[in-house]
Parts: sequence; structure tokens; C-alpha cells
Amino acid sequence: MSDHPMPEALLFDVFGTVVDWRSSLIAEFETFAGARGLQADWAALVDQWRALYQPSMEAVRSGKRPWAILDVLHRESLDTLLAQHGLSALGEADRVHLTTAWHRLKPWPDVVAGLTRLKSRFIIGTLSNGNVGLLTRMAKNAGLPWDVVLGAETARAYKPMPEAYRAGARLLNLPPPRVMLVAAHNGDLAAAASEGFMTAFIARPTEYGPAQARDLKAEGAWSFVASDFCALADQLGCR
Amino acid sequence: MSDHPMPEALLFDVFGTVVDWRSSLIAEFETFAGARGLQADWAALVDQWRALYQPSMEAVRSGKRPWAILDVLHRESLDTLLAQHGLSALGEADRVHLTTAWHRLKPWPDVVAGLTRLKSRFIIGTLSNGNVGLLTRMAKNAGLPWDVVLGAETARAYKPMPEAYRAGARLLNLPPPRVMLVAAHNGDLAAAASEGFMTAFIARPTEYGPAQARDLKAEGAWSFVASDFCALADQLGCR
Repeated sequence: MSDHPMPEALLFDVFGTVVDWRSSLIAEFETFAGARGLQADWAALVDQWRALYQPSMEAVRSGKRPWAILDVLHRESLDTLLAQHGLSALGEADRVHLTTAWHRLKPWPDVVAGLTRLKSRFIIGTLSNGNVGLLTRMAKNAGLPWDVVLGAETARAYKPMPEAYRAGARLLNLPPPRVMLVAAHNGDLAAAASEGFMTAFIARPTEYGPAQARDLKAEGAWSFVASDFCALADQLGCR
Repeated sequence: MSDHPMPEALLFDVFGTVVDWRSSLIAEFETFAGARGLQADWAALVDQWRALYQPSMEAVRSGKRPWAILDVLHRESLDTLLAQHGLSALGEADRVHLTTAWHRLKPWPDVVAGLTRLKSRFIIGTLSNGNVGLLTRMAKNAGLPWDVVLGAETARAYKPMPEAYRAGARLLNLPPPRVMLVAAHNGDLAAAASEGFMTAFIARPTEYGPAQARDLKAEGAWSFVASDFCALADQLGCR
């Protein structure tokens, strides 16, 4: 265990850190397509869908459009991509089904065991750009044992805006140094550290697929660096 | 099971419906006082504390004072009552300890078993005037298996203001008829029904002590009426 003071709450980035969105979505598309005899480059479509994630939130962050939750942004991006992939004929029910694939993402193998151990000692919750409904349904589908689900709407701000982090600490009635962000993304941790949070980096070297080039290792002086959630539980003294 | 359509989410009033605040607080004061040789009418003090609950929120609802969370309102009311009961000498740490007794309230005996059954089929969460931090710590202390913790700050409105209910449904991305409020208070259910929620009344006839005169039975055409959470799970077809 480190000689850091201990946080009271651990808040987790979700997409990539907790759940393997890329493999989960590719599997969803393949199952969906197999049942309908559809063909497309599903991995490319999924990578493009995720590539539209930051631009879609940036339109909200910058004030170019009014507040919109991630379910809505995901749906708009999906509509764009279906057209590009020759799938314009898909109807409303199919589009809802595919958009809510984000509610059915699968956790990395260490996650449920690691969170269960961490929960024995800390408040554990989400600090995600996902909407509360998305995160709540994902947790039910995947068995994620959160104590509290904080989403983009509870802050009405998308990370890495400072308010997204501030709202997380404020909603738990904690000063930022008593909260630790756990994330697989150095940029997210840097923004949290700027707000006074403790930080833990977890490597997820295949989040973006086999050719991932970013976030392969810790790039800042984070409070903790661990290979997965169970290793973090070890470092934090959770059985 | 009734012939009602089924909700997707059950949101619960907490103080009185889920936890027995009166007995829990009296026990907290007695333990606290016993260790210090203090004497006062603790049951009276607790009843007075709860009696200040509505007036303290009303000052926020009416706009007479800026937004304040329940932890802050509880602390102000406690300070007033300690002075009235000759306990002005209590220091800061003791006042924090007593205020956070609301984080340590005990559930009624049927609650954990009933919630666990209901969780197998529905999203279960809080729709409380408590702050998120209070409700999160209460859930950890009492083992309440919420899927989602919605507090007064997530709506920035205190029940029975319409926005408190609307925000609950909106944060779950559900139309109000797909959400059912479970409460031991007819007034809370009436306000929820006005917003289109389904409703379930659970009798808690000793919430206010042995002489309770209110909310002894259902006083409206609620969707469900049950004697406790396990009976509600029976009615909703949850094993």
C-alpha cells in the first residue's frame, strides 16, 4: 500500500475503463447482422461510432447545441454511419436496439471481482459521460455493484470540463482530495488531478483494438498505477 | 398480480418508507448520551427534529433561502434543538456525529429482503429529499441494494414539488407511467400520481411512534397497496 492518504470514494470512468465497448459492440453488430443476413465492416463501423463520440460531445461543451444526453448523441452518430455503410433501410426498432447496445457493454474480466473488493472499503461509483439511465441499465446487465451512479446529467457537463469532476465530489459531500478517479485514460486523470482529485491509472491496452497506440501506460504522477481492478484492490488493502 | 401495466423502475421514498428514522435516532441519542452521562428527553428531541424537517425545506422551496442540502438543514435544526434542551455545550465533532446519524438509520425488517427480490425484475432507486451523499452512505451502512441513488440535488427540488418527480423519471429516461413511487405517505403518492407515476402504498404505522395518527392506510386509488416490501414483491411477481 502507498503512503498516500486514503480516499473515501472511488469514482470510475466507464467506457474503456470498466467495460470493453469495442469488442462488445462488434459482437452486438455481428449477432444482429447474422440474424438478418446483413453484411458490413462492423469493426470499422464501431470504430467510427466511437470516433464520433468526442465531436458529438464537443458540440454540447462548446454551446453549439443545447444539452443532450449520450443516448441521443449515440443515436445521431449511428444514423449517420448506417447511411454511410449502406444500411439506411434499418427501421426505428433496430436503431433503438443498436443504440442501446451501449447499455449492454461487457466488463473487462477483472471488473466485477475487483469492484466487489473495493466496495468493501470505499464508496464506489461512476464518473462518466454516459447518461444516468444508460449507466444504470449497464450496471444491471453486467452486475456492476455501484454504490452510486453519477452521469453527465448530474453535472450537466461532459468530461473533461472541470464541472464534471467538481459535481462528482460535491454530490458525495466530499472535498476533491477525498475522491479518487480511476481511469484508463491519462487525459481524464490529468483533468481530475487539476481539480484536486486523487488518481489511479488502469491500463486497458486493447480498448481500441489490437493496434492501440494511446494510453498504453501511465503518463503522469498518478496516485496509483495498477494492471487491473484486482491489482488496485490489492494496493488499496481491500481483501 | 394486478392487471396494471408493469413499471420498469421502482423509486422509493426513504425516510419512513425504507428506514425507521425515529427508533434509529432515539437509539443513537441514547448511546451517545449514555457514554457521556447526558440526560434529556431524547424521544421528544427526535420528534422535534423531524418536525423541523418540512419547515426547513419549505424555506428552500419558497425561495426564501438559496438551495441547501438536507445535511445542512438537519444540522441547523439540531443546533436549534440542542440549545432548547440545555445541550449548547456540545462541540463540533459531536454535532457532526449526531447530524450524520441520518446516514446510519436502520431499515424496517422487511426492506433488504424485499428490495433484493424487487431488484431482480425492476430498476430500484431512491426518490428522496435526502442528499445523494446521505443516501449513499445510508445504503452502504444498511446494505440497501439500490441500482441508482437519486437525491434532492439531482432534481434541485424538494418533494412534493413537481420537478422532484419529473427529474426522477427523466434521469432514468422513462416516461412517468413507467416509474412507480413506493411510499408510506399518501401525500407523496398523490404528488407522484399527479405527475403520471404509478404508485404503491406501504403502511408504516409506527413511523411516528406508538401514537401515529396519519398515513395508517391507503387514502387514494394507488396502483398497489401492500403491508411491506416483501408483500409488494409478491404482488409484482418477484420471487
